[in-house]
Amino acid sequence: MQTSSGLFVTFEGIDGSGKTTQCQRLLSRLAELAIPHLATREPGGTALGERVRDILLNSNYLALDPQAEVFLFLANRVQNLTELIIPAREAGQVVISDRHRDSTIAFQGGGRQLGLDWLDRLHQESLSIEPDCTLLFDLPVATSLARSQKRDTDPAQAKHRDRFEQEEADFHERTRQAYLELARRYPKRFVIIDAAVPIDEVTISMFTSLAARYPKQLGQL
Amino acid sequence: MQTSSGLFVTFEGIDGSGKTTQCQRLLSRLAELAIPHLATREPGGTALGERVRDILLNSNYLALDPQAEVFLFLANRVQNLTELIIPAREAGQVVISDRHRDSTIAFQGGGRQLGLDWLDRLHQESLSIEPDCTLLFDLPVATSLARSQKRDTDPAQAKHRDRFEQEEADFHERTRQAYLELARRYPKRFVIIDAAVPIDEVTISMFTSLAARYPKQLGQL
Repeated sequence: MQTSSGLFVTFEGIDGSGKTTQCQRLLSRLAELAIPHLATREPGGTALGERVRDILLNSNYLALDPQAEVFLFLANRVQNLTELIIPAREAGQVVISDRHRDSTIAFQGGGRQLGLDWLDRLHQESLSIEPDCTLLFDLPVATSLARSQKRDTDPAQAKHRDRFEQEEADFHERTRQAYLELARRYPKRFVIIDAAVPIDEVTISMFTSLAARYPKQLGQL
Repeated sequence: MQTSSGLFVTFEGIDGSGKTTQCQRLLSRLAELAIPHLATREPGGTALGERVRDILLNSNYLALDPQAEVFLFLANRVQNLTELIIPAREAGQVVISDRHRDSTIAFQGGGRQLGLDWLDRLHQESLSIEPDCTLLFDLPVATSLARSQKRDTDPAQAKHRDRFEQEEADFHERTRQAYLELARRYPKRFVIIDAAVPIDEVTISMFTSLAARYPKQLGQL
């Protein structure tokens, strides 16, 4: 799957999976080890992506059609690939994206029930490259909801509350199951990390998995 | 194709085809005859659409990936269908859209060479309804370019100049041919109107075609 010395790693999981915290820890470690890397996120990442992010996460757009939502994510994704991810990966960098294709397939295909197969095929037909590795931070929905609720009572974190986190437990359960189905469908690309354990242990699992998988680039983790 | 007393009519053609002028004339006539109608356009039409329009027609985004462009158009289109077009048509109104699905298939599929078949299939799989009737304002590219250039020397019209009009004649020729291919593919939906003749004659053709096709709703045109 790896076609150059660069790598493209995506972080995936339901809300409250601790994915973003782990992503930041990996980025700090890469910086510490002076490993050339690029961080991006979806929605966001580019000038276009940040405008799309603003539309998607703005609670004024609660009437956004679920398919329109999918196409906004895809516009953002294609632009990030062309503008950031592909050039950095070709230049030998480790590219890290906090959410990518599997978020849309799991959240919209599974969670919003637009059809996992349709969205999977749409991505296969539209995107020029796949991630080399997808870290899926998996945990039971009840645990993730408890974490999100704890975060909501912390005023410093309140700004993170957005449209998606207003969804119900059923939505999150369908999303989790869709992620697990994608992991079964693409076993070579997916690494499932148990995210229900304490966060320092999650970090160790992540570093260990990446070091074992990419000894040349990430053996020092 | 008509499943209710409402109608959904789209206006299509290359830049400089006079499509927007004809669209305005039809809308004036519908108002005069007190025929209930709704006017929309793409890009634009809804709050989401106007934000997308701003991104698409802004010359600062010349580096916009052609596929990202497609997905922005699709997001706009799906939202307009759900929010405006489908409810108005079901309520028995005549819905007029200045550009719709065939613009993306012709401009991006043909003009930008992303593949007419891919885009046609993407629309078939994604959109819940097709137009009842598509008016294709057809004319040679040389004639349309001469009109656009005339418009550009008029300061009152200069604001209409946008990214798409900066493209070359080859692009417009590929776009025209893609439109004609779509008209061959969907002969029941398409009406080709000769747009190379004087504009009053184009208006007469348009009114005559619509009146003949929909005597019950538009017989008075």
